[in-house]
Amino acid sequence: MPANILSGKMIADEIKSEVAAEAASLRDQHGIVPCLVAVRVGEDPASSVYVSSKVKTAGELGLRSEQIHVDADITETELADIVSGLNTRDDVDGILVQLPLPKHINERRVLELVDPAKDVDGFHPVNAGRLMQGHDTLVPCTPAGVIEILKRSNIEIAGKNAVVVGRSNIVGKPMAMLLLHENATVTICHSRTRDLPAVTRQADILVAAIGRAGFVRAEHIGAGATVIDVGINNVSDKDLARELFSADDLEKRFAAIDKRGFTLVGDVNQREAMERAGAFTPVPGGVGLLTVAMLMKNTVKAAKMRRGFFNAAAN
Amino acid sequence: MPANILSGKMIADEIKSEVAAEAASLRDQHGIVPCLVAVRVGEDPASSVYVSSKVKTAGELGLRSEQIHVDADITETELADIVSGLNTRDDVDGILVQLPLPKHINERRVLELVDPAKDVDGFHPVNAGRLMQGHDTLVPCTPAGVIEILKRSNIEIAGKNAVVVGRSNIVGKPMAMLLLHENATVTICHSRTRDLPAVTRQADILVAAIGRAGFVRAEHIGAGATVIDVGINNVSDKDLARELFSADDLEKRFAAIDKRGFTLVGDVNQREAMERAGAFTPVPGGVGLLTVAMLMKNTVKAAKMRRGFFNAAAN
Repeated sequence: MPANILSGKMIADEIKSEVAAEAASLRDQHGIVPCLVAVRVGEDPASSVYVSSKVKTAGELGLRSEQIHVDADITETELADIVSGLNTRDDVDGILVQLPLPKHINERRVLELVDPAKDVDGFHPVNAGRLMQGHDTLVPCTPAGVIEILKRSNIEIAGKNAVVVGRSNIVGKPMAMLLLHENATVTICHSRTRDLPAVTRQADILVAAIGRAGFVRAEHIGAGATVIDVGINNVSDKDLARELFSADDLEKRFAAIDKRGFTLVGDVNQREAMERAGAFTPVPGGVGLLTVAMLMKNTVKAAKMRRGFFNAAAN
Repeated sequence: MPANILSGKMIADEIKSEVAAEAASLRDQHGIVPCLVAVRVGEDPASSVYVSSKVKTAGELGLRSEQIHVDADITETELADIVSGLNTRDDVDGILVQLPLPKHINERRVLELVDPAKDVDGFHPVNAGRLMQGHDTLVPCTPAGVIEILKRSNIEIAGKNAVVVGRSNIVGKPMAMLLLHENATVTICHSRTRDLPAVTRQADILVAAIGRAGFVRAEHIGAGATVIDVGINNVSDKDLARELFSADDLEKRFAAIDKRGFTLVGDVNQREAMERAGAFTPVPGGVGLLTVAMLMKNTVKAAKMRRGFFNAAAN
């Protein structure tokens, strides 16, 4: 039986309409319109696409948003001043500094300057620490989105074996903590893991956040497992695409390669996952869509937390 | 072949003499004597023993220390004021609030008040977050001590399967992060884990931080594994003691029960670990001794970090 495809679109749309309803109620009942400010540095084309999509979605859901775009040769001090200014602006609820930053800027120092109460990306160490300690806080959007996919697809997490491949600060580690708090038994794997397929085959829930196109193959997947694909890679090689996709998907993929020069591919070999997994998230159309939806959710949450509508620190 | 016993005493002594040497050099070269202040609330007898031992060890290593002891009926605000006062005292390098606090005081709120730069217990969320994100910071003493035991016993961590049983904020979760950063493949288990013995038997390194006397038995231990016992439990039942200890250990245990009413027991069945494990830490005489040593190490580290001798935030 081919695997069940977990559509990110349906779930992201569901969350976005909840956020829009909450934003409307904040506006109508309290006169508050949550405001997200995205800071973009330089001319990275992917960053430009991401930020535009975030700003556009915010508008669609009834949030305010601003984009601050500065040249790649901005100094770290100047960028720090921009962030500090946003921290003190009372009308700003969410601040995101789009990564990557130019090499002459210390990303970590800039991210630590963001007021944790406005840190809608959940990258500040105090938010990472609160997440690790199991307190309600602003959580990184991608792993938070994965939890939403699992819950809203009625996939049980408690008591299950969850294996996360990848240990980044943005996805792998917070993902592991969120699954742990949902009572999964959690294993974190990485490039130094011995016999990776033997470990990942034991997963009821397998999260791939590696950054290598089609890396997770049939041998990595236990029969019937839920496979969550966090990867987003560009593939321009048609032979590789033939490896990764089933016949009925190939035509569309080849068309994308011909038109744009590449097709978007996850960390999971979709053709093999289809035959082996119980369910999986496609790329595109899976986890990626949740990331933006969760950013909007975090912005509304930050707007409420800052005003004491609920107090995460007291939980 | 019976398991190798990893003596906490030798390793703790080694670390303590390193700390004493560093303290002497700080004093001689910079006129700095690191100062630890322990705040103890109420009359919990175990807290009294722990704090006295910490203060005494500090003195032995050439650090300054103070104990602030207040009544159990202190208000949260009054306790908060004490912590804030210590934050502003420039001569104080390390602040520890001995847990548990009386029930009318919100532990988390008090711990979050401690200046992260003086948080020698490593409990503040910003330090938890920095640990999770892989940055050099003040790390909780017990899991940091476990890493010292493994490294100084030449037990390889990288590429090994490490299984942590227990997911507390003080031990389990920081332990998992430290093992991960040492390149182990890390699994976190807990009360909701299915078939725990099957999971723990796959561990090359098994860390037990459960809080139940002798819970980890032969069936949980893979042949030749390194077993680290973080538990400290009181056992007063001689029949249970007979289950947990080999014949040559029993006389001493019975004597302790007769004399003090209990004997100190870890989370691991020592008799069975001796037959199954490759190496294990005893209780008493294992991990517990490291906790105090690492607290001293953190106090010196805090004294240096605060003065910019090295800057964790820049790593």
